[in-house]
Amino acid sequence: MSGNNVVWHDQAVAKDERSELKKQKPCLIWFTGLSGAGKSTVANALDRWLHDNGYHTYLLDGDNVRHGLNKDLGFSDEDRVENIRRVGEVSGLFVDAGIITLSAFISPFRSERRMVRDMFCPGEFIEVFVNTPLDVCEDRDPKGLYKKARTGEIKNFTGISSDYENPEKPEIVVDTATTSVDVCVDKIVQYLCSNAVIPAYSLKEDNTAQVS
Amino acid sequence: MSGNNVVWHDQAVAKDERSELKKQKPCLIWFTGLSGAGKSTVANALDRWLHDNGYHTYLLDGDNVRHGLNKDLGFSDEDRVENIRRVGEVSGLFVDAGIITLSAFISPFRSERRMVRDMFCPGEFIEVFVNTPLDVCEDRDPKGLYKKARTGEIKNFTGISSDYENPEKPEIVVDTATTSVDVCVDKIVQYLCSNAVIPAYSLKEDNTAQVS
Repeated sequence: MSGNNVVWHDQAVAKDERSELKKQKPCLIWFTGLSGAGKSTVANALDRWLHDNGYHTYLLDGDNVRHGLNKDLGFSDEDRVENIRRVGEVSGLFVDAGIITLSAFISPFRSERRMVRDMFCPGEFIEVFVNTPLDVCEDRDPKGLYKKARTGEIKNFTGISSDYENPEKPEIVVDTATTSVDVCVDKIVQYLCSNAVIPAYSLKEDNTAQVS
Repeated sequence: MSGNNVVWHDQAVAKDERSELKKQKPCLIWFTGLSGAGKSTVANALDRWLHDNGYHTYLLDGDNVRHGLNKDLGFSDEDRVENIRRVGEVSGLFVDAGIITLSAFISPFRSERRMVRDMFCPGEFIEVFVNTPLDVCEDRDPKGLYKKARTGEIKNFTGISSDYENPEKPEIVVDTATTSVDVCVDKIVQYLCSNAVIPAYSLKEDNTAQVS
């Protein structure tokens, strides 16, 4: 069977029907930033907030996907790009399923983030730059990776021996060095409200949402 | 960064919480059978029925996945196994998200179906063998592929020049040559009810569900 014989099947249940059932506008919230910046922490906290408020979500995590779908990939430049490509495609399936999808990956290169953005309709891809300074990330070093990168035990480590290209026009910027996780979540929730992903909430000081 | 430095992150929102929000027991309904057997047709009809009855579903289709996630794969034995492996892993993510997931792939080999089954907890993987006879499939030939396989234009075509290994213990067997699509759907819905994937329904003759 050759590649020429692949035919696109229309799906009987359409994307907007799946979204309507969930009473939400699906999107991909893409967290990018250095190792230790707090991507997974903020993404998990946002996921918790959305879930507790009745939204249908799923979180794709760089490390977790590496154990399953992408366990055949290493850390060469080529494999890192393929890692992000597959995560983008899978995120596309989740968004097609009507899910508010969160992804937390270093994704250091503009070209790969652009590749993923281009897989989505305008407004569906929401880039969150977790802009925690390198010295703070290195000081945290939750997995001891920066130490190994400094001694050369780990090669091509983002921020040390490999570039991180700052997003030029991210939809949202947060910094876990100067603001609490709750405040970061609050900022993203307000963006989602402003862009009609979820209805408007009035956020109380304790970050408990109330429908306005 | 080497493969040794991958750490599993616990996800803040657990699988059972995602399922509870959707009021369903997530599972993977895996359709297998020859090209033209009716896998996509029955899967789409089941998807429609489940969606219309308020269930949160998603359908992964062999042809559709080939255009995105697996567009880098060809049709060699190795690539076909990798195709199914990735679909299994992605299905695992959807089930983890609390979704009733449907997959329609020829998946001709017992070993690859076993590989996917082994990714899931007992009871989560439901194999539906669409056991439409080869002569009926070839007679339908909706994409003209059997004709090309007979002339040798397509190599390694399942059922003609490559084996299809019948499932030994599928959870459900349907045959679209002798039964209507509605009756096939009905049979699967009854299995889902019997196995508490969805609540018990009493099915009227027109296949409209009523809660019993």
